[in-house]
Amino acid sequence: MGDLEIRAAAVDDLPAIVAMLADDPLGAQRESPDDLTPYRAAWERLDADPNQHVVVGVRDGRVIGTLQLTIIPGLSHKGATRALIEAVRIHADERGSGLGGRLIEWAVDTSRQLGCQMVQLTSDKSRTDAHRFYARLGFAATHEGFKLKL
Amino acid sequence: MGDLEIRAAAVDDLPAIVAMLADDPLGAQRESPDDLTPYRAAWERLDADPNQHVVVGVRDGRVIGTLQLTIIPGLSHKGATRALIEAVRIHADERGSGLGGRLIEWAVDTSRQLGCQMVQLTSDKSRTDAHRFYARLGFAATHEGFKLKL
Repeated sequence: MGDLEIRAAAVDDLPAIVAMLADDPLGAQRESPDDLTPYRAAWERLDADPNQHVVVGVRDGRVIGTLQLTIIPGLSHKGATRALIEAVRIHADERGSGLGGRLIEWAVDTSRQLGCQMVQLTSDKSRTDAHRFYARLGFAATHEGFKLKL
Repeated sequence: MGDLEIRAAAVDDLPAIVAMLADDPLGAQRESPDDLTPYRAAWERLDADPNQHVVVGVRDGRVIGTLQLTIIPGLSHKGATRALIEAVRIHADERGSGLGGRLIEWAVDTSRQLGCQMVQLTSDKSRTDAHRFYARLGFAATHEGFKLKL
């Protein structure tokens, strides 16, 4: 098994990223891996925003994980900048391999380097394995996460 | 009582905004209303980022509420753009007046106008009144909210 590389995602990674988003109990109901059109439009928006960092984990030339890190300035907490982690996915073949931890460590290290004072994320209440995973990495489940679909 | 105006915050609103951030059971422990230096630095970062919208509610020339709305493009949910609400504060004299609902409605309407498919926020688990407030406005507490301080 080769070394893991974590690097900025490129537009050519979209098929692999979307396949991972769709290969998930929740994602299967809401993604369209056979039609990348909406993802290409979203890619343009992500690419134009310097506060967005979509990364992939690659081993032996194969994309096996992804997450999105967003840097968000703010006034509260004495003008703290925070980082938000979204869309964490690990390829089915690689779950339990420690890759998720490596990706989150990358996100935390990058947030620190970019001057953030806090990293935050929300996880669907049905993802209890994920909750244990984030707790092990030092995250505290101090907040209720509310969503409103438009 | 005059009409409520909701408008983009200006740098001159910082003292009133920071006073509201500090006048709060959690904020009292972590804000510095007597030293605006860190908030002025954060303001520069917010002002430079077109995806950040800090707004204030104003009545009779007085700033009585604030929130921050962040627009976040993404790949998941078929390339959905989401909006994040942070730092919602209502002046102590105005709590229970319906102003919080007006500010959140502004945020939801603005998110829709900007093409977002979802609005999200987290609320400290100790803020049970806030949780009922968001539920009344149609938000669902579907997620655990994790934080890691750096």
